[in-house]
Amino acid sequence: MPVTDIDPVTVHPNPAGVKRLAVLTSGGDAPGMNAAIRAVVRTATHQGIEVVGVRRGFSGLHRGNMAIIGARDVANTIQRGGTILLTARSHTWRTPEGRAKGAEYLREWGVDGLIVIGGDGSFHGGYYLQQEHGIPVIGVPGTIDNDLYGTDHTIGYFTAVETALDAVDKLRDTGASHERIFVIEVMGRHAGHIALEVAVAGGAEEVFIPEDPRPVDGVVATVQESLAKGKASSIIIVAEGFPGGAQGVADAIEAGTGLETRVSILGHIQRGGTPVSSDRVLASRLGEAAVYALMDGMRGVMVGRMNGEISYTPLEETWEKRKDVSRDLYRCAKTLSV
Amino acid sequence: MPVTDIDPVTVHPNPAGVKRLAVLTSGGDAPGMNAAIRAVVRTATHQGIEVVGVRRGFSGLHRGNMAIIGARDVANTIQRGGTILLTARSHTWRTPEGRAKGAEYLREWGVDGLIVIGGDGSFHGGYYLQQEHGIPVIGVPGTIDNDLYGTDHTIGYFTAVETALDAVDKLRDTGASHERIFVIEVMGRHAGHIALEVAVAGGAEEVFIPEDPRPVDGVVATVQESLAKGKASSIIIVAEGFPGGAQGVADAIEAGTGLETRVSILGHIQRGGTPVSSDRVLASRLGEAAVYALMDGMRGVMVGRMNGEISYTPLEETWEKRKDVSRDLYRCAKTLSV
Amino acid sequence: MPVTDIDPVTVHPNPAGVKRLAVLTSGGDAPGMNAAIRAVVRTATHQGIEVVGVRRGFSGLHRGNMAIIGARDVANTIQRGGTILLTARSHTWRTPEGRAKGAEYLREWGVDGLIVIGGDGSFHGGYYLQQEHGIPVIGVPGTIDNDLYGTDHTIGYFTAVETALDAVDKLRDTGASHERIFVIEVMGRHAGHIALEVAVAGGAEEVFIPEDPRPVDGVVATVQESLAKGKASSIIIVAEGFPGGAQGVADAIEAGTGLETRVSILGHIQRGGTPVSSDRVLASRLGEAAVYALMDGMRGVMVGRMNGEISYTPLEETWEKRKDVSRDLYRCAKTLSV
Amino acid sequence: MPVTDIDPVTVHPNPAGVKRLAVLTSGGDAPGMNAAIRAVVRTATHQGIEVVGVRRGFSGLHRGNMAIIGARDVANTIQRGGTILLTARSHTWRTPEGRAKGAEYLREWGVDGLIVIGGDGSFHGGYYLQQEHGIPVIGVPGTIDNDLYGTDHTIGYFTAVETALDAVDKLRDTGASHERIFVIEVMGRHAGHIALEVAVAGGAEEVFIPEDPRPVDGVVATVQESLAKGKASSIIIVAEGFPGGAQGVADAIEAGTGLETRVSILGHIQRGGTPVSSDRVLASRLGEAAVYALMDGMRGVMVGRMNGEISYTPLEETWEKRKDVSRDLYRCAKTLSV
Repeated sequence: MPVTDIDPVTVHPNPAGVKRLAVLTSGGDAPGMNAAIRAVVRTATHQGIEVVGVRRGFSGLHRGNMAIIGARDVANTIQRGGTILLTARSHTWRTPEGRAKGAEYLREWGVDGLIVIGGDGSFHGGYYLQQEHGIPVIGVPGTIDNDLYGTDHTIGYFTAVETALDAVDKLRDTGASHERIFVIEVMGRHAGHIALEVAVAGGAEEVFIPEDPRPVDGVVATVQESLAKGKASSIIIVAEGFPGGAQGVADAIEAGTGLETRVSILGHIQRGGTPVSSDRVLASRLGEAAVYALMDGMRGVMVGRMNGEISYTPLEETWEKRKDVSRDLYRCAKTLSV
Repeated sequence: MPVTDIDPVTVHPNPAGVKRLAVLTSGGDAPGMNAAIRAVVRTATHQGIEVVGVRRGFSGLHRGNMAIIGARDVANTIQRGGTILLTARSHTWRTPEGRAKGAEYLREWGVDGLIVIGGDGSFHGGYYLQQEHGIPVIGVPGTIDNDLYGTDHTIGYFTAVETALDAVDKLRDTGASHERIFVIEVMGRHAGHIALEVAVAGGAEEVFIPEDPRPVDGVVATVQESLAKGKASSIIIVAEGFPGGAQGVADAIEAGTGLETRVSILGHIQRGGTPVSSDRVLASRLGEAAVYALMDGMRGVMVGRMNGEISYTPLEETWEKRKDVSRDLYRCAKTLSV
Repeated sequence: MPVTDIDPVTVHPNPAGVKRLAVLTSGGDAPGMNAAIRAVVRTATHQGIEVVGVRRGFSGLHRGNMAIIGARDVANTIQRGGTILLTARSHTWRTPEGRAKGAEYLREWGVDGLIVIGGDGSFHGGYYLQQEHGIPVIGVPGTIDNDLYGTDHTIGYFTAVETALDAVDKLRDTGASHERIFVIEVMGRHAGHIALEVAVAGGAEEVFIPEDPRPVDGVVATVQESLAKGKASSIIIVAEGFPGGAQGVADAIEAGTGLETRVSILGHIQRGGTPVSSDRVLASRLGEAAVYALMDGMRGVMVGRMNGEISYTPLEETWEKRKDVSRDLYRCAKTLSV
Repeated sequence: MPVTDIDPVTVHPNPAGVKRLAVLTSGGDAPGMNAAIRAVVRTATHQGIEVVGVRRGFSGLHRGNMAIIGARDVANTIQRGGTILLTARSHTWRTPEGRAKGAEYLREWGVDGLIVIGGDGSFHGGYYLQQEHGIPVIGVPGTIDNDLYGTDHTIGYFTAVETALDAVDKLRDTGASHERIFVIEVMGRHAGHIALEVAVAGGAEEVFIPEDPRPVDGVVATVQESLAKGKASSIIIVAEGFPGGAQGVADAIEAGTGLETRVSILGHIQRGGTPVSSDRVLASRLGEAAVYALMDGMRGVMVGRMNGEISYTPLEETWEKRKDVSRDLYRCAKTLSV
């Protein structure tokens, strides 16, 4: 039998001698962050390592807002949206003084490494802490936008897509009943991952993403062809980062066709809610991997999952390199709206 | 046994001699409209009455856009959002000529009565048709706003509340994680029913409804008290018909407290989606009752459900009289946000 | 404006001089119990009354498993399934000694009354406590079965219906794709409320409830007629308390028609999940009313909601009198399956 | 900009000269099958190829139950569970005569290839058709079990996991409130993919899968340790193909601990429901790829997605080779239940 020889209680080697680590969530909250915290805490506990939870991200770190958390403290959290460690933006952290204060607290608490769950802004924060104060930092990608290089998906992305898709399904009911055009704006300030996936899954007629800032006037032809084919309503998806946003696209349609066009901006609901399975599993795997990475002596890397395997990417590459949207999916979105 | 003596296949008396009836949906779509259409068609079929389905509401009626629909045509529709008969606004119907054209089509089709599923605008349309052309009209309350006098609830209201509540639950995740204030605008141009129910069910700190257009500056004190009590985040619900809307309330909070406040306008998603059980059951009961009402010789009334029983209200009363929001619930919203 | 004269911060009169009350949940858990606990705690707090939370129902009461709970302790619980106070069955409570022990603890804690959230078994427990020890008891109906006399609905019923309906919708997908018959068993040991509502909302071909224990062989004709009408699949709902259950019905169909018939027993999933709005609002209203009832000097009654108004029913009537299922709905279920 | 040079309207080369193709769904239905049908139909339409839809799988094929379907016929189906082409088991298809009859119909209809959406049984059916009659067959993996070699995931798997997880979340509410043990059986006759993913995502204490048929008595220690750590309730996941099933595990726990243990068998609800985004997108990609594969002259292969790229696997390998469950995930399930 293939899996019988797995000894799940194996102790992971700990050449780095990690005895205590800290964890925080930072930046915009994402569904699955709690599953990641839980995985960090439980993996550490399982390996005999203590965990210090920092509240309110870097803002809490430079204020010393932290406490020991144990395996039971994360019970019944895997299914919760948001983050039990809270999150906040911190201007102070952008100053060397702020970071020095945070480093001091980490040393006071005897911490051998810090796990940062968040997006690229958060990884910057961790990167400078490590550079300036030598504290090993491991990043865990937690952001709905899926715009980090070094991982196929980020924690929160799957749930955000599902929430947006559910809204699209609902709007289609109204669109179809009124034979109306809906232009729906989904999150994605710099990246079209959510928009593209939702467009394909939602059967949208058209999608506009920041990676392809083309003129919107082509949409008029799309809508007209669509009507000519007998489609009574249209769904058009726009990523928030596309120039002009959903309103710009809707204006173009109304100007070009004279048809009543409704705009719906989904907004913050995409950040919340019970995480879907894919986010919980990804968070569980990456939280576990982050602890092992620290134990292995890694530092300054983000743990990710690429092609099903855990990957390690230098923090600076996560924002310097660009993760493209899938060209195949972009083409597919077009083909299937025929 | 209490229910054994029910003969479910009883033939309903038909003093009005109805042989064929027409049905349409009109105004904004509401979840459960399909369940109501299905109930009309199946009850009629069961009673040996033919049904003519009119597409696109009154707009389709004055164009003769209609066809016979049978029991199988409504199979597998009870769970669908929107309306399979489509809906539209009609300017032509506001003219006597438009209505005369519609009446002509109804006579051509040999229809003995018309069932109108919609809100007060739609009931106006039906009322004038009956006044001017003597065609019996029965209204079925289908609108998410729940603002019709003569029925405790309207079809679609329960689902709209659930959709809005689901969004509130999601926003609370983010609100709590960021210790932020969310001001959420729900549908209700003239009535606060959705807002009030969602405020109680969503555990909101405050609710603003059109029925009580008080100054918004009191909210600053509410938020400050709330913080003083140790609440880290606040949810405030605003009905779209409240003067100034959610943005007005958010501006007041930011001006008065300096705290970061986010606005979320839920919009059209509240109209769509699979109807919840309460809407399907209400629609089933009212669709059935509408057919019986026509058979009984009633005309110019809306069928509703009050205190669990079918009620009949003259169409003009449904818009002339006002259905108040529940004072008890309004008080409860306040008490429980303590 | 109709509601402006409401003073939501009114102090409720307290002729009974209640200064401290206890609350517990008992029997099977039901979605919305937490909303009821929250409403009790917050209403009491608002009126200057302290609340003692008893853990594990009567089982915890006779062990003195209790603690003061405040307004912040119930924050963020309104949307949670289950009960934060836990629940359990207690054999000891059925003995006078057990109840005497519980009464002693309540006196030790200086409690002026006890609010029991649960079903008829729980109300029995409260009834004897009051009879034997004079401690005022108020019941709050919390059970998914909706089988308590004295309230139109019980807390948890709406959510259980929604969960069961969601399962029916899913099974219909498979039933329709395979042209198969599904016999679905829903909860309801003694009452068919859930079954009947789900049958109407789910568009079922047939429903079997304990209140009408007719022979199942009639279902064979129903299924055959249904096929003759061109329906390719059938959904049949059976309440668990119907003699023979879903399996009995399925056996009859297979024996009589030779058609492949699948049984699905939904089971405990119907108890859990985020409560729907209707349950949260009902729980909020009844939790508030229970506190006011104690303050008003009532005792030995269940608070309920009938026709939209708060009602008070002697505890013993809640189990002695029978709440019938709606005959109209039973007939409607039949008519609409045409 | 990285994606601007994509020409989404490119015509795919058609060396095989495909002018008309047939498509069918077969075996157990899976959410996303409609999205796959839609993708086949629309991609073909887009490439100027006609599509013949076969109803009821191979059972319909040997009866000639087929018709042309166009791009509009699949409108508004991407979000629907089940399969609009219906599915059935066919004993006749297992005979050479049955397949000869089906081949005859395909030739009569002038079909240049057949796309089979289903699991390994369905692929067997297609494989023999191609072997015996030379009709090119392309398989598309549609089964919730995810047990086909040659693709990382199968269409329907993601939704089944989500449905099972939703049930686990609900049962945990009750389990936690009653401090009870729940043993939950999920689908997976031969494979533990669903069970394993649900166990990790659901925070289960233990998981039993067919790939690792170990003795169940170890679970007694797990439960006892879990109690010793202060966990009040336990969730244990069992794949239906594990020897003894959920009941066997529950019996062992009750025998070994004396604790009340509930069994919940989720059953067919896991097959239905609106497909989640991941299933819709996978189905869209694979449906598209299946058409291109036929055009490219491929035959006797299943299209799959491995590491994000379209892959092609000989049909016979899909059942001869075994897709293992992830060892990493199996270990992770253990570690995180600490």
